Amino acid sequence: MTKHFSYDITGTDGNARTGIIKTCRGEIRTPAFMPVGTAATVKAMKPETVRHTGADILLGNTYHLMLRPTAERINRLGGLHKFMNWERPILTDSGGFQVMSLAKLRKITEEGVAFQSHIDGSKHMLTPERSMEIQRLLGSNIVMAFDECTPFPATEAETEKSMLMSMRWAKRSYDAFHDGSDHAEKNALFGIVQGGVFEKLRRHSVDALKDIDCQGYAVGGLAVGEGQDMMFEVLDYTMPHMLQQKPRYLMGVGKPDDIVGAVERGIDMFDCVLPSRSGRTGQAFTPRGTVNMKNARHTDDPRPLDEDCSCSACSNYSRAYLSHLFRGNELLGLMLLTEHNLTYYQDLMAGLRDAVATQNLAQFVKYFHQKRALGDIEPL
Amino acid sequence: MTKHFSYDITGTDGNARTGIIKTCRGEIRTPAFMPVGTAATVKAMKPETVRHTGADILLGNTYHLMLRPTAERINRLGGLHKFMNWERPILTDSGGFQVMSLAKLRKITEEGVAFQSHIDGSKHMLTPERSMEIQRLLGSNIVMAFDECTPFPATEAETEKSMLMSMRWAKRSYDAFHDGSDHAEKNALFGIVQGGVFEKLRRHSVDALKDIDCQGYAVGGLAVGEGQDMMFEVLDYTMPHMLQQKPRYLMGVGKPDDIVGAVERGIDMFDCVLPSRSGRTGQAFTPRGTVNMKNARHTDDPRPLDEDCSCSACSNYSRAYLSHLFRGNELLGLMLLTEHNLTYYQDLMAGLRDAVATQNLAQFVKYFHQKRALGDIEPL
Repeated sequence: MTKHFSYDITGTDGNARTGIIKTCRGEIRTPAFMPVGTAATVKAMKPETVRHTGADILLGNTYHLMLRPTAERINRLGGLHKFMNWERPILTDSGGFQVMSLAKLRKITEEGVAFQSHIDGSKHMLTPERSMEIQRLLGSNIVMAFDECTPFPATEAETEKSMLMSMRWAKRSYDAFHDGSDHAEKNALFGIVQGGVFEKLRRHSVDALKDIDCQGYAVGGLAVGEGQDMMFEVLDYTMPHMLQQKPRYLMGVGKPDDIVGAVERGIDMFDCVLPSRSGRTGQAFTPRGTVNMKNARHTDDPRPLDEDCSCSACSNYSRAYLSHLFRGNELLGLMLLTEHNLTYYQDLMAGLRDAVATQNLAQFVKYFHQKRALGDIEPL
Repeated sequence: MTKHFSYDITGTDGNARTGIIKTCRGEIRTPAFMPVGTAATVKAMKPETVRHTGADILLGNTYHLMLRPTAERINRLGGLHKFMNWERPILTDSGGFQVMSLAKLRKITEEGVAFQSHIDGSKHMLTPERSMEIQRLLGSNIVMAFDECTPFPATEAETEKSMLMSMRWAKRSYDAFHDGSDHAEKNALFGIVQGGVFEKLRRHSVDALKDIDCQGYAVGGLAVGEGQDMMFEVLDYTMPHMLQQKPRYLMGVGKPDDIVGAVERGIDMFDCVLPSRSGRTGQAFTPRGTVNMKNARHTDDPRPLDEDCSCSACSNYSRAYLSHLFRGNELLGLMLLTEHNLTYYQDLMAGLRDAVATQNLAQFVKYFHQKRALGDIEPL
């Protein structure tokens, strides 16, 4: 077991927790939001700017990186941290989700997933063993077990079959991860709870993973179309059975109110492309809800996007300017709005951490929803 | 005459000069390269990063800004400096060049140029008076006289006719600029020498502009397809007749060796989209010539693009990473290579300034060409 990875829970409020995950690459304050650096870059952002928004850790995508530039090439070049100029912790997913959503001509067997690259049609195979190898080659600090992303909707029988295979793959991931390498010594493996929207299956998955001594656990297979109510319901009946002392990561989530509700239910870590992807389409997150910067009402507005935000976009520019950039398809618009959205997400996490630490979470959540209900500021 | 604009030539070497242009927005070290901020943004760059590359002044395009977001809107929002978050000097062109190269259904008369927007087909008119008004609304620190961009190639008769109209327009620009406004008091007007590739016409244009007491003079109508030899020939016979004590600006130039040759011939200021536009297409400028980052030979190369360059791209990333970004069409690739290219241009200007100040220009130029002749570093 790694001596370089630990989780100290420093405060709780109801089911919510706050604390510090220690890794060989530095500390992660929880609840944490991990910006997504798909292809070894958080799109439209320099890594120092991502850090400046408050991010302690990035997520990298095994599927994208194995295809281009390849894990072997990144390894030859000194690993993912050096390659992308990010010295702090990196979590890599296992490739299980993207291979289902992006790859072509997939064939799933007990062995793993055979597929063709969406980039050039080249043939590849992802197995638990290969996923562990790739994540080791990348130098990932938090390695995710290889799982099958159960389609949604799926029947209980389909979901059970998929979950049981993911549990077998989790055991194979564990065995492959613990190869005696320096990488395994220093870094962590997280298991992934599956079971769709079926309480019995989620319970079964949690129990199966308890037999595999991972350093943390993710809840997978949510935010795939089931809706927030059902997602929260799954968390409500799943979380109480998960080990209390280990980090809990809700994969691919989510919208700001998804995150707030999941923190209330005991989740410690999140990742989502929403803030960065929305930033590139002109959609801004603010405490008063989302704002479309392409909307004509901004063209003469001298006010900042969010006067309480300290990011570059809000400190240095008017809504009129941001609107001008998006109307002209200027790259600076994508850069500034991505930076703003990531800042909003990190500020939200900082607020949640502080609220849990001071046991003011209920009040924080009430104010969060009240402010959103106001809607965007009135036109001048 | 403005008290807020002056040019102190602090050193010469042959025909070359170095010095400081003082404006109400700060100093410009010459020879100076002005990055092009066409639509109120240097594409893919934050203004603080542009400043960090060493730029003292930006260029803004009257044609683009008058169409979107409009000069009136920028004026209502506090002027171009505030709008785009650039506190230092801005030079604006007159719109004369872009209206010829971009606008639709142009009709040129003695009054000015009627045209339709390339963005939405809306109808507009640019005259010397309107160009001065727009540049005043923007808050430009160096205003360019409105001129006709003579097509190339053109006969001597066509060129003469065009140049003579530009001289009449220069006088109208002067009269319109000096409207007693605070803007005219604080800022400068530059005239533009035309006359194509005909010595007699260039001489005539220089003399005509001497009658108009501008704070500086540009050489226009070059770098339009005549080639470097002919461009240098025009400078050779034009420059000796231009006023020695005023800034001289070679518009739209150019490639690094164009700039070096023009500095040798006494030019003080340059602008060109080349470093920023090339940065977005994967073309990098280095002391050893241009390098195409999309070339497959970089994919495994751990070395920086240019080991002697201090920009972000060269300090923090390998050629392999830059190549990866361009192969994946990642926005960070455009950002980093634009920053590198602008840094290269500013470093070149700093080298030229130092060489002129220390009267080592001949040696600097020799070394500049020797290094380029080496070509890019060998593959590993």
